[in-house]
Amino acid sequence: MPDLSDRDDAVIRLAAEVAAIDPPDARARALAEAELGIKTKPCGSLGRLEGLAAQIAALRGNGRPGVLEAAIVVAAADHGVAAEGVSAYPQEVTAQMVANFASGGAAVSVLARRAAARLLVVDAGVAGGYEAAGVRRLGFGSGTANSTQGPAMSKEQALRALLAGTELADELARTGIGIVGLGEMGIGNTTAASALAAALLPSDAAAVTGPGTGLDHDGVARKTAVVRQALNVNRAGLGDPLGALASVGGFEIALLAGLALGAAGRRLVAVVDGFISAAAALLAVRLAPAARDYLVAAHLSPEPGHRLILADLELEPLLSLGLRLGEGSGSAVALPLIQAALAILEEMATFSEAGVADAGR
Amino acid sequence: MPDLSDRDDAVIRLAAEVAAIDPPDARARALAEAELGIKTKPCGSLGRLEGLAAQIAALRGNGRPGVLEAAIVVAAADHGVAAEGVSAYPQEVTAQMVANFASGGAAVSVLARRAAARLLVVDAGVAGGYEAAGVRRLGFGSGTANSTQGPAMSKEQALRALLAGTELADELARTGIGIVGLGEMGIGNTTAASALAAALLPSDAAAVTGPGTGLDHDGVARKTAVVRQALNVNRAGLGDPLGALASVGGFEIALLAGLALGAAGRRLVAVVDGFISAAAALLAVRLAPAARDYLVAAHLSPEPGHRLILADLELEPLLSLGLRLGEGSGSAVALPLIQAALAILEEMATFSEAGVADAGR
Repeated sequence: MPDLSDRDDAVIRLAAEVAAIDPPDARARALAEAELGIKTKPCGSLGRLEGLAAQIAALRGNGRPGVLEAAIVVAAADHGVAAEGVSAYPQEVTAQMVANFASGGAAVSVLARRAAARLLVVDAGVAGGYEAAGVRRLGFGSGTANSTQGPAMSKEQALRALLAGTELADELARTGIGIVGLGEMGIGNTTAASALAAALLPSDAAAVTGPGTGLDHDGVARKTAVVRQALNVNRAGLGDPLGALASVGGFEIALLAGLALGAAGRRLVAVVDGFISAAAALLAVRLAPAARDYLVAAHLSPEPGHRLILADLELEPLLSLGLRLGEGSGSAVALPLIQAALAILEEMATFSEAGVADAGR
Repeated sequence: MPDLSDRDDAVIRLAAEVAAIDPPDARARALAEAELGIKTKPCGSLGRLEGLAAQIAALRGNGRPGVLEAAIVVAAADHGVAAEGVSAYPQEVTAQMVANFASGGAAVSVLARRAAARLLVVDAGVAGGYEAAGVRRLGFGSGTANSTQGPAMSKEQALRALLAGTELADELARTGIGIVGLGEMGIGNTTAASALAAALLPSDAAAVTGPGTGLDHDGVARKTAVVRQALNVNRAGLGDPLGALASVGGFEIALLAGLALGAAGRRLVAVVDGFISAAAALLAVRLAPAARDYLVAAHLSPEPGHRLILADLELEPLLSLGLRLGEGSGSAVALPLIQAALAILEEMATFSEAGVADAGR
C-alpha cells in the first residue's frame, strides 16, 4: 500500500481511479438487445427487466453477462453530529448493529442470505466497541468530528476512505463478484447524508432532510437546523466534492462513494440502496461522472432527499415499497430482480430454438 | 371424482368451496405485527414487506408462517375469439408455448427456476397439438367457441374448469405448497379477459381493452369492437359471474379463478400476475368475496384493465416494471419479495436477542 499520509499520492491514485472508468459498451448493449428481441416473448414485454439486462450487458462489456455473483457491503461508522440529538437511537446502536450484521440477525443479513449474496461488514469508523467475527476493520478512527463545529474529517481522511472503497471494489472484482450492493449503518448518518446532498446537488437543507429512522415533525425541524448549521460552519469547504465530503460527510459514506467509483472502473454493477447510499453514489458521480452508468437504483424510500438525488442522477428505482431501513436492505431486496433480468437474457429460448412463431410471421 | 355432467352436483361442490373460505386470522396477524415490532430495525422501516408478512401470517393462520414453498401454475387454453384477428400472434403459438414452458425455455420457466418455485403447466383446452412431457392435460376441449357468435363455453364446462382449479389448489396444498402464483397463456386471452372484466366490474369495453401482446392503435380499436360484440351477443348471460365466465371467458381463466378460490379455502397465498390473471382473480372474488384477502398482486402492467381490476379488488401491486407478458412471469418475479418478507419475520433477531438498544430506551 502506498503511503496514504502523502496527500498528493492519494490524489493521484484517486485521479487514476476516475480515469479508469470506461463508458458502457454500446456493442455489448446492442448484442443483448438483439438477443432479447428474439427470445420467446413479445418484444419488450418484460419491460424494465429487459432494459436492466441491456444496461448490465453494456456496463459489463459483454452481450451475455450471465447471472452474476453478488456481494452486499455494509459500511458502518459513527458521526460526531449525533451529539446534536438528530436520531431517535443512541450512538452505541452503531456498534451493536455491527455485531448483529456479523452474527446474521439483522435485516440485511437475512435478505443477503435469501438473495445468495456475500455479505461484507466493514467498520469504517465505529466509535463503540463490539465483539464480532468477520468484520473488516479499516481503522479510520472513532467516528467523525461534529460537523456543526467544524469539518467532520480531514481531507486526508476523506481521501483515505475513498481509496479504501476503491480497494474493496478491486478485491470484490478479483474474487468473482459482478454486482455490489451498497449498504450502511451509522447513527446520525441521515444528517450527514442530508448535509452532503444539500452541498452536492445543491439544494436547500429542508428539501433533503427527513425523519430518518423515525423523528417526528419537531425532530425533523431540529435536524434541519443542525444540517443548516453544519453547512454554514463549513461553508468555505463545500466548493468541491472532496471538500464537501470532508466537511459534512461520514467515513461510511466516503467508503461507499469510493466503492461505487471503484466498481465502475472494474465494470461492476453498483446497486444503490436508500438515501445515504444514494448520497454516496452522488458523491461518486460528482468525482467521476462516468460512474453514473454503472449504478442501478434498488428502490425509492420515503426520505425526501432520496428522490432528489435519484432525479439528479437520472436513475429510475426498481422498487417503491416504503423501505427506509438502509443497511443495504433495499439493495438485497432488489438483487433477485437484477438476477432475474440476467437469467432472462442468459437462459430463455429464442423463437427459432423453441419452434415458436413470432408475431406476424 | 363426482359425476361432473351433473350440473347440480357441480354447483353444490362450488358452493362448498366458497363456504370453506375463512377470513384471515386477526390473532396471527397481531402476533406477526408484534414480532415485527421487536425486530432489530426501526418500527415499520421495511415498509410494505412488513405489511405483506403480516397479511400472510393472517391468511395462513400462523403468526410465524416461515418461508413457504411456492408453485407457479401456467394454465393454457385457446380462444375461438382469436378468429376475429385480435392478436398479433397466430393461434398455434399457444401450443408451441406450452411445449416451451415444459422444456424450460420460456420466461416463466426461467423465472420460476430463479425463484425456486415449482412450475406446473396445465393444458386447460389448447387447440393445437404439441409434444411435451410433464404437461397436465385437463381435456376441456379444443379451445372455446367464438364469443362474438354466442357463449364461449357451456355453464357445465365453466363449472368443470372452476372445480378443476379448486382441485389443483387442493393438490398443491397437500403437497406442501404455501404460495401459488397464477399464470396463463392463450392467444386471444386478453380479449376474453377484457370482456370478462367489462362484465364483472362492470366497465365500458374501451376502458379495459388494450394492446395485449402488441396491437397498434387500429388493432386496439378493432379488438374493442370485438369485445363489444361479444358482450352484446351474450348480454342475456352476463348477469351473474358464472354466466359471464361461460359467455366470454376462457378455460384457463376459469381454471385460474377456481385455483384462486380453492387457494383461499386452503389458506394459500394466491399471487396475481397480469391483466388476465387479475380477471380470473376478480371472477374468484365475485364468486367468493372472502377470497380477496388471500390475494397478493405481483405487479401492475401497462394493460389498462389491470389497474381497474386491482383498484376494484383494493390490491396494491408490489412491482411496476412495465411487465406485459403474462405466463405467470410477474408472479415469479414477485416471489422473492414475498419470500424476503417471510424471511424477515422468521429469521431476524429481536432487539433483546441481539443486545441492541431500541429507540428512546
